[in-house]
Amino acid sequence: MKPVKVGLLGLGTVGTGVVRIVEGHQEDLSSQVGSPIVIEKVAVKNLDKKRSIEIDRSKLTEDPWEVIRDPEIDVIVEVMGGIAGTKEYILEALDRGKHIVTANKDLMALYGSEILAKALEKQCDVFYEASVAGGIPIIRTLIEGFSSDRIMKIMGIVNGTTNYILSKMSQEGASYEDVLIEAQELGYAEADPTSDVEGLDAARKMAILGTLGFRTNVELQDVQVRGISSVSKEDIQYAKRLGYEMKLLGIADRQDDEFSISVQPTMVKKSHPIAAVNGVFNAVYVYGEAVGETMFYGAGAGEMPTATSVVADLVAVVKNLKLGVNGLKAIVPYKPKKLKNDEQISFKNFLLLQVSDKAGVLAQITQVFAEYEVSLESVVQSPNADTPDAEIMIVTHNASKASMDQVLHHFEGLDVIRRVKSVYRVEG
Amino acid sequence: MKPVKVGLLGLGTVGTGVVRIVEGHQEDLSSQVGSPIVIEKVAVKNLDKKRSIEIDRSKLTEDPWEVIRDPEIDVIVEVMGGIAGTKEYILEALDRGKHIVTANKDLMALYGSEILAKALEKQCDVFYEASVAGGIPIIRTLIEGFSSDRIMKIMGIVNGTTNYILSKMSQEGASYEDVLIEAQELGYAEADPTSDVEGLDAARKMAILGTLGFRTNVELQDVQVRGISSVSKEDIQYAKRLGYEMKLLGIADRQDDEFSISVQPTMVKKSHPIAAVNGVFNAVYVYGEAVGETMFYGAGAGEMPTATSVVADLVAVVKNLKLGVNGLKAIVPYKPKKLKNDEQISFKNFLLLQVSDKAGVLAQITQVFAEYEVSLESVVQSPNADTPDAEIMIVTHNASKASMDQVLHHFEGLDVIRRVKSVYRVEG
Repeated sequence: MKPVKVGLLGLGTVGTGVVRIVEGHQEDLSSQVGSPIVIEKVAVKNLDKKRSIEIDRSKLTEDPWEVIRDPEIDVIVEVMGGIAGTKEYILEALDRGKHIVTANKDLMALYGSEILAKALEKQCDVFYEASVAGGIPIIRTLIEGFSSDRIMKIMGIVNGTTNYILSKMSQEGASYEDVLIEAQELGYAEADPTSDVEGLDAARKMAILGTLGFRTNVELQDVQVRGISSVSKEDIQYAKRLGYEMKLLGIADRQDDEFSISVQPTMVKKSHPIAAVNGVFNAVYVYGEAVGETMFYGAGAGEMPTATSVVADLVAVVKNLKLGVNGLKAIVPYKPKKLKNDEQISFKNFLLLQVSDKAGVLAQITQVFAEYEVSLESVVQSPNADTPDAEIMIVTHNASKASMDQVLHHFEGLDVIRRVKSVYRVEG
Repeated sequence: MKPVKVGLLGLGTVGTGVVRIVEGHQEDLSSQVGSPIVIEKVAVKNLDKKRSIEIDRSKLTEDPWEVIRDPEIDVIVEVMGGIAGTKEYILEALDRGKHIVTANKDLMALYGSEILAKALEKQCDVFYEASVAGGIPIIRTLIEGFSSDRIMKIMGIVNGTTNYILSKMSQEGASYEDVLIEAQELGYAEADPTSDVEGLDAARKMAILGTLGFRTNVELQDVQVRGISSVSKEDIQYAKRLGYEMKLLGIADRQDDEFSISVQPTMVKKSHPIAAVNGVFNAVYVYGEAVGETMFYGAGAGEMPTATSVVADLVAVVKNLKLGVNGLKAIVPYKPKKLKNDEQISFKNFLLLQVSDKAGVLAQITQVFAEYEVSLESVVQSPNADTPDAEIMIVTHNASKASMDQVLHHFEGLDVIRRVKSVYRVEG
């Protein structure tokens, strides 16, 4: 049977994995789709780079346009990353009627709706399973597995670097700075770790998951983001004492048709299944109105896990190609976007306060919470041996973000409070 | 747009959930598939039964054939369960060109290949996501999410009743008999619990997962089954002391093209993600050559979780109907079946022996393991206060089933061994 020809943009970590799987599993793949899948042309940065796989040099080019414009090529697999050139390549490929598989979360978070609209116009497929949570088929699960349900909440550990750092800090009592250096040495964190540690990478993935889960067009600027660089050893020890693990969680939740979406270090009750997800692993917890609690766990990055998702998408594209139904199953968000306001956003909070160690302080502080109708789940006061101050740990019940902002604003004018040391969202 | 008409066989727990979702989520569903989905006719056991949902009485019939033979009906949703009549209904519906969604694990485990062959012949869809692990979209994941990978191992907690019983025994130190009665009172176990507690229900689900994971026709008789009725309070306490949780695990694994598949109470290392799955929850752990470790967690049964999967399948069938591609994506196992023999099946074992408390016993016993080349990971001997005997706990390294059988056979003739109290597979 006539082989399906694939053009590959990028031959870095994931691209190499894609070649390995397509060649190594050729028999399994062609049994499923009914014809061989051939990698016809590969755009690389440097023709002369040494590679860990054998690849026919005549297939390589340094010009991505040569791949895009090759009329023989049916499907473009984009694993080069980045946004600037990539967007043009993909739009041009769609214009030429080529189907797209991409692992590019940045592109899909920023220009997903434009790309999907073009694909719909050209009746082409755009699949992007690998853009979120590497090897975990979470996009398929949201689109197909839960097509019948109303997703009310998605909580994701969708960045392996930060989960590695927080897990190590928790397990070894180490500081953020020390673990970051170690993660950089091990290749788990980049030389410039900003995008990971400040939560931007996670925010992009959450925008994609939110769009699919809520069937509305969630944009990157809708995601409220706070990273982990200010999380201290002490915060994590306090969390553990109270029975929580600190995790960088992406949280998308909705009530009726209003949703909120955020990424922040969060104290998660140890009994919650996502609290046990450690190291570079990812997990996505999904709560559906009908299905209830579910969780999906696996490798969030790495050559082979990510390539598994890319090639699974490729199989889906090729099956559609054989059936002549590409582009007909695209999911276009159809619900109007309604963001929750600060009165509607509500969750539990942990606060660590440094206060004057004298009688009546606790009464003053609890009075502030009462004034803004924030009720408290627990309050623990302990003297600090090194200073004349005391420390108070507070966990609130669910409170609106608006009320909590008022409480914190009020605290600024309160003499007995020396410092609000930490504030974290609490889940589970 | 012309509505899609659905015939429902069965209006018990799951059927009721299906009606709730199809009616309650009508707007979401029709936005996805492009036309309304209407439940046209419902076969029930008793027209006069009181129901928790409103349903137009004129849609009900006590004769399933009336539903099957209705020329207006496009899709049959079978949630009545059982095998005898059900098989005929489904084959006849396929003959009439109707597509099938079923939640019937018994039917798919026993007659799946016959039903899928008929579907292929008639170009009809047969989807059965709800037949395994209720609301967890594990069948989709194996067929599509991991289409590119080579699945090497599947471990599943796929029976909620037994997981509830073992979790309770572990958490409360209760006996099997007491917890079973409690589970029956709560409706988690049936009056005749045999199918659950003896592992037959789990075996059926594992046959389905094995077929999909290994792309070969795994039959029910290929699954070696042992239930939980002989698991004692003591066994679970020993397991915990050594850092294990007792779980009824379905395990399918392969090396090259040979596979083995079994269901048995298994001691799972506490650090393994599946060890933390408690109560009536289900989870399926999948190890793929490329993707590595993954796990999927959620409700394994219940009205709404199971109905979520049924209606997700219904959405998929209706999308295919609109595209005119039903029956073209059926997965037919294409690999020849090769079962491992007892020399090839290999795993770690836990043994609890009651022995004479005298010098040299341990040497005699370890000598037997050495003779059959079974190496040991740990041996713990402790006197038993109540008797003149001692107890020995042994955990082996990986050992072939053939060797272990020889060891156990040899033990029968060994005077110093009073009794082999327990033998369990060990994982994680």
